[in-house]
Amino acid sequence: MLILDMVRKHRPVSRAEIAKLIRMSPTSVGRIVNDLIEIGLVKETDQFSSGVGRKATMLDIDVQQILSVGVEVDRSVIQVGLVDLDGRVVAEQHHVIERTAGQPGIIAEKIAGMIIGLADTQGIAASKFIGVGIGIPGIMDTITGNVVFSAQMGWTNEPFAKMVEAIINLPVVLDNDLKVKALGESSIDAMSNKEITALISIGSGVGSALVMDGKIYRGANNIAGEIGHSTIDPNGKLCECGKRGCLQTYITDLAMLQEANQIKPVSSVNELFALMRAGEAWAHNIIDRACTYIAVTINNVVCTYNPDTIILTGDFIENHPEVFETVRSKSKAFIWEPFIGTFELIRSKHGEKSVMVGAAKLVLQQRLDRGLRHK
Amino acid sequence: MLILDMVRKHRPVSRAEIAKLIRMSPTSVGRIVNDLIEIGLVKETDQFSSGVGRKATMLDIDVQQILSVGVEVDRSVIQVGLVDLDGRVVAEQHHVIERTAGQPGIIAEKIAGMIIGLADTQGIAASKFIGVGIGIPGIMDTITGNVVFSAQMGWTNEPFAKMVEAIINLPVVLDNDLKVKALGESSIDAMSNKEITALISIGSGVGSALVMDGKIYRGANNIAGEIGHSTIDPNGKLCECGKRGCLQTYITDLAMLQEANQIKPVSSVNELFALMRAGEAWAHNIIDRACTYIAVTINNVVCTYNPDTIILTGDFIENHPEVFETVRSKSKAFIWEPFIGTFELIRSKHGEKSVMVGAAKLVLQQRLDRGLRHK
Repeated sequence: MLILDMVRKHRPVSRAEIAKLIRMSPTSVGRIVNDLIEIGLVKETDQFSSGVGRKATMLDIDVQQILSVGVEVDRSVIQVGLVDLDGRVVAEQHHVIERTAGQPGIIAEKIAGMIIGLADTQGIAASKFIGVGIGIPGIMDTITGNVVFSAQMGWTNEPFAKMVEAIINLPVVLDNDLKVKALGESSIDAMSNKEITALISIGSGVGSALVMDGKIYRGANNIAGEIGHSTIDPNGKLCECGKRGCLQTYITDLAMLQEANQIKPVSSVNELFALMRAGEAWAHNIIDRACTYIAVTINNVVCTYNPDTIILTGDFIENHPEVFETVRSKSKAFIWEPFIGTFELIRSKHGEKSVMVGAAKLVLQQRLDRGLRHK
Repeated sequence: MLILDMVRKHRPVSRAEIAKLIRMSPTSVGRIVNDLIEIGLVKETDQFSSGVGRKATMLDIDVQQILSVGVEVDRSVIQVGLVDLDGRVVAEQHHVIERTAGQPGIIAEKIAGMIIGLADTQGIAASKFIGVGIGIPGIMDTITGNVVFSAQMGWTNEPFAKMVEAIINLPVVLDNDLKVKALGESSIDAMSNKEITALISIGSGVGSALVMDGKIYRGANNIAGEIGHSTIDPNGKLCECGKRGCLQTYITDLAMLQEANQIKPVSSVNELFALMRAGEAWAHNIIDRACTYIAVTINNVVCTYNPDTIILTGDFIENHPEVFETVRSKSKAFIWEPFIGTFELIRSKHGEKSVMVGAAKLVLQQRLDRGLRHK
């Protein structure tokens, strides 16, 4: 990844120059460059280096000619994007799915069809795609490509990556949506990735993800960051998981709507916000408490991960502009003094595209790391 | 570290055999081996490999002849140990310090004196020491070797590593005590370090540390894992840090004794346990609630880090044998289903020696990583 980034940034560039830039031995650089040439990511040019000493062949890369496919699958929508090596979405397509049509086989076929459709429309040969990355809510096994469990999709132990691979004949990797989202939000440049980015998402669920030095932190079973079921109060409200006082019983859409409906029928968080803006004190109480617990969550993520950046995202944040500043302001009361000034609290940069961008980046990383060319 | 471990395990071994074992290029292995020979960690033998092809010089290592110094500094005691490459403490000395004698200069001189004393007693030449690692409670800057802040020692911005270095003329590194303890508890063998070990310590304070693939996880400012100030209840009891409802207001010695003294004068946690064993229901209530919050803490560490091993340690755990089983049993009510069976909850293996062992391991890692031989 590092060498690919060096070629991308300094092209045209010689093997020796790369070795100097990243302080790696010329032998190792040569070996990796040969691998990159073999899978078609890097090519030798007719140019030669102009410096002192033996003339060296320059390496180049055609950023737009090599594409990763990034896919987001959610309960209600499939998004497919063709993403270049600079992390730009060059073409994309969205498809609203019926909740009743959530079977993995149907979704896999739809994704494959969308990829082929996009390639046709854009006039891009399938040989230019290096692979497909997919972000899905739930617990994913990145080694087997299985969806272990996804409450949102209603899937358990589905070999989803293999289903898509069987149709499209490209390497397919999948991962948890928030993990790839954090990867998409972190810088595309491996050299500037000496950073620790935590992402916190609040919406229909609560979750977090951590990217360090440009890589997703997975933990032992790829379920690190599932803070929705961290315990706030051992005597608290019963969570749908059967435990008491989980964080998600305080700040998800469902938690807020359950409380609201004790007062009067409210069918959406948007409606709750409208009531708050209309001056309803009880609506303000519900939203205000959620904001307090989001601020608490920021402190707790800071205490455990000590990130330099926290991205606050999810529908609750994105759809209601006042929330971000309220939470930022509240968080000041909860941050322990040694952590003050150690991190930047920001919003999503890529917005709705970040899962696609991250999934595309993931498949690129995996092909480089695992040598998927030998598949 | 990996190559050093390979020599240690397979000695005598040739460069080519190492390259094959760890799948690294012979050139890279050769370069690192030369560095290891230069700093005296590895030596060439008179033996030659017996396999087919060109004869290769075999490499060996004298595990007992190369020692790291591991030091633990706490409010009331200094422990110095000479640790071999297998992680065994071959000699050690403890020194109880007066709280009034806590100035860093005096402690630095004491440490240097203890190291020289141990070397003399054991008849070990100072040239065999590769460096000194020190574990201290508080926030440490591992780059500069400064103690940023240590409430326990009463120190702020003390260039403590440099103070010790100036006296002893050996490379000195320091780090937070729990971070090096976690390193000491994790396996000494880099090849078996494909593991994620979280350590939780409960006593006068609450903290955690994470070691993955044999390396301490530090976060952006080396303060990852400071869970004592994570927020449990935004409306909770005021913490000494000025915030409300921090985890440490529920489970530290001080928190328990403050509660106990509302009923009757109790001067130590040992006394509180004695009262509980004598059948005092209120003493049971206090200890039971602390155990509940330790169980909650285990769940919260699991949700964020997804470790495969959790080491539960600290005076509260070590001094009261019933606590470990109580907490283990209580934790079952708080672990989210997907995490069940993903980790092993264990006690400290090295006990009081683990900070020394970890600190010794840290200085070895740092010398290999940062090339401290060029100092």
